[in-house]
Amino acid sequence: MKARFKELETLYKDSLLGDVIPFWENHSLDSECGGYFTCLDREGNIYDTDKFVWLQARQVWTFSMLYDRMEDRREWLDIARHGVEFLLKHGMDAEGNWYFALDRCGNALIQPYNIFSDCFAAMALSQYAVASGSDRAKEIALRTFRNILHRKDNPKGQYYKGIPGARPMLSFALPMIISNLVLELEWMLPKDESADTVNRCLAEVMDLFLDSSTGLIFEHISPDGSHPDCFDGRLINLGHGIEGMWFIMDIARRSGDTALRDRTVNTILNILDFGWDKEYGGIFYFLDAKGKPPQQLEWDQKLWWVHAETLVALAKGYLLTGRQDCRKWYEKVHNYTWQHFPDPVHGEWFGYLNRQGEVLLEAKGGKWKGCFHVPRALYLCYRTFAEMAENTAILPPPPCKRSRQ
Amino acid sequence: MKARFKELETLYKDSLLGDVIPFWENHSLDSECGGYFTCLDREGNIYDTDKFVWLQARQVWTFSMLYDRMEDRREWLDIARHGVEFLLKHGMDAEGNWYFALDRCGNALIQPYNIFSDCFAAMALSQYAVASGSDRAKEIALRTFRNILHRKDNPKGQYYKGIPGARPMLSFALPMIISNLVLELEWMLPKDESADTVNRCLAEVMDLFLDSSTGLIFEHISPDGSHPDCFDGRLINLGHGIEGMWFIMDIARRSGDTALRDRTVNTILNILDFGWDKEYGGIFYFLDAKGKPPQQLEWDQKLWWVHAETLVALAKGYLLTGRQDCRKWYEKVHNYTWQHFPDPVHGEWFGYLNRQGEVLLEAKGGKWKGCFHVPRALYLCYRTFAEMAENTAILPPPPCKRSRQ
Repeated sequence: MKARFKELETLYKDSLLGDVIPFWENHSLDSECGGYFTCLDREGNIYDTDKFVWLQARQVWTFSMLYDRMEDRREWLDIARHGVEFLLKHGMDAEGNWYFALDRCGNALIQPYNIFSDCFAAMALSQYAVASGSDRAKEIALRTFRNILHRKDNPKGQYYKGIPGARPMLSFALPMIISNLVLELEWMLPKDESADTVNRCLAEVMDLFLDSSTGLIFEHISPDGSHPDCFDGRLINLGHGIEGMWFIMDIARRSGDTALRDRTVNTILNILDFGWDKEYGGIFYFLDAKGKPPQQLEWDQKLWWVHAETLVALAKGYLLTGRQDCRKWYEKVHNYTWQHFPDPVHGEWFGYLNRQGEVLLEAKGGKWKGCFHVPRALYLCYRTFAEMAENTAILPPPPCKRSRQ
Repeated sequence: MKARFKELETLYKDSLLGDVIPFWENHSLDSECGGYFTCLDREGNIYDTDKFVWLQARQVWTFSMLYDRMEDRREWLDIARHGVEFLLKHGMDAEGNWYFALDRCGNALIQPYNIFSDCFAAMALSQYAVASGSDRAKEIALRTFRNILHRKDNPKGQYYKGIPGARPMLSFALPMIISNLVLELEWMLPKDESADTVNRCLAEVMDLFLDSSTGLIFEHISPDGSHPDCFDGRLINLGHGIEGMWFIMDIARRSGDTALRDRTVNTILNILDFGWDKEYGGIFYFLDAKGKPPQQLEWDQKLWWVHAETLVALAKGYLLTGRQDCRKWYEKVHNYTWQHFPDPVHGEWFGYLNRQGEVLLEAKGGKWKGCFHVPRALYLCYRTFAEMAENTAILPPPPCKRSRQ
């Protein structure tokens, strides 16, 4: 078993450092206008030059994180700074809200209607501040984080199309992302603020979005946790539920809350039972909780991030509980993922497969896929299997430069 | 050849009257709250009760049109009135803009952010006014039409997410729909108003959206007709282009403009050459004009309306030009469509197939598919093949009750 963990540790580390990171190092830097190209075709050629704040920020996070937690490679910090400079110069409106999209030169194209731009910017700047010691990055990360908390009950503002008061619904994505973001920013937050935020996230995610009767995470719920019988109210986003559960597992691990940890693991396994495609393998993108036809035409597709997040969730779940059902599910999802997503010819991973597991879009990056889910999952799986290989049940987190500040 | 036309005339008429219309008559009427259920599963069971104004209006149009142009069946007019009453009671805000979605009882759920709700409402009320003689329907259709023309340069209003002035783009859908809507409402419009509207549509569609170098209709263009090199600027929506061309062919037919007619037919055939799936058959949903990866994950799916509109376009093209390439393409699309979309067990058509032609969603209706594209295409193909079977090159349009008013 130890040999298997060692083998997996090596696979993830080699794939991260020998395949995925070089792909983005070689192809994504815009040396002329700053920032990163993320619309890269199968070979890494640029097919579109627009810059999406989600993906600019996520790449900053990835390279800052690698510099901070993996190795002191100067070029990684330089790549992160390259993105930070572009983001700070062009990414915000006058009120400090983050635009959704910019053109190649940084001219704003799409208004700050999407609060996740702010979430990923805060996450990126916090991690960059840790890696670089930049006070400006820290200060803007903090301001952005507080702006997110301020906007979170009406995140779309004027762009919200619902009738006020008519069938109000909460969306899982925001408390889910904040569950992760608050741990990312914890080092700069006053203790009360991070504890309050964690507690609010736990209450929302585990008591409202996690439905006790089905054991599923619903993507949209009424404010009282009930499920309106409509397309949005029945929607299950399998990857979101699983990713959210490993965010909460991280919270449980640091607080030593084993009951909470066990609930997250049970939920992950339950979502997998519900969302695994028994015919073709892989995890569906969307399902209707009642088995009705989903609205999303891409419901049956197999997406890279869903599978990457599931590998992280199962590896962490196994590390923390030693449950054999985690191990079995890990191997099943591992086989599917490693057989289908990595591109054996040009490196990195394909993002979008059809239900049958054939490549639907050959691009390595676009408007939603960039340098984030794959390297983060590779890094976290590498660390998790390294812990298992070393057979130390709970390792301290890896050395972190934030202590040097 | 005449025998084939007769056979097709019979196929379309029988399918319309013996299969498709009975499906909606039997399953869609909400006798309790008014209006129609459109979320019907394969067997016709209701799986969601929300009411989308697009689909409420389109079903009103279909039953009014059948009563007006096909047969004096009282029950068809009653079904149309059932929807009109629901729409007039619940469908508009205080300024006369049409909501996008209502709940089963008619409470507004989604704001009037979508101008196509207004387009289909105007189309429905005009056709209902013709069928029923209702002055109120006529008056609201006219008011809605003028409101559309008033809103058309900023159709999304406050919900527009682009930065003003940054990469402005026009969308094909609106001039395309207005090209059809203006003929639907011509009977109630002052001559100048309809002529001006037709001329503006022709200029936009044929001189701006139709790209002379590729012969393709672009879904979004710059105001000067150029093509920004970005996801939206490269997008080709095959079904929209083909549907738009038969709308313009109708305009060309009534004005006797054979050069315009020939341009529409050339464009239809060119779009088909570009958009036909040479591997699995059928017409793609979306393609990138430059062959780059499209943003739409559903790009390779085969949709019922795309194929239904193409049958109409090719049948009309063949009727008006006698071109053998229209005939050949008609038979090719006919074979694909009739082999894949109709449900041999429970009637009506499946809406969504995967690239391979397998059923992706079994539902007969939902948020976007209702009682419209299939019955309209069946009716128009039936009429067109009837003309061909009678061998009269240009028949007058079928008798229409509007002359009785």
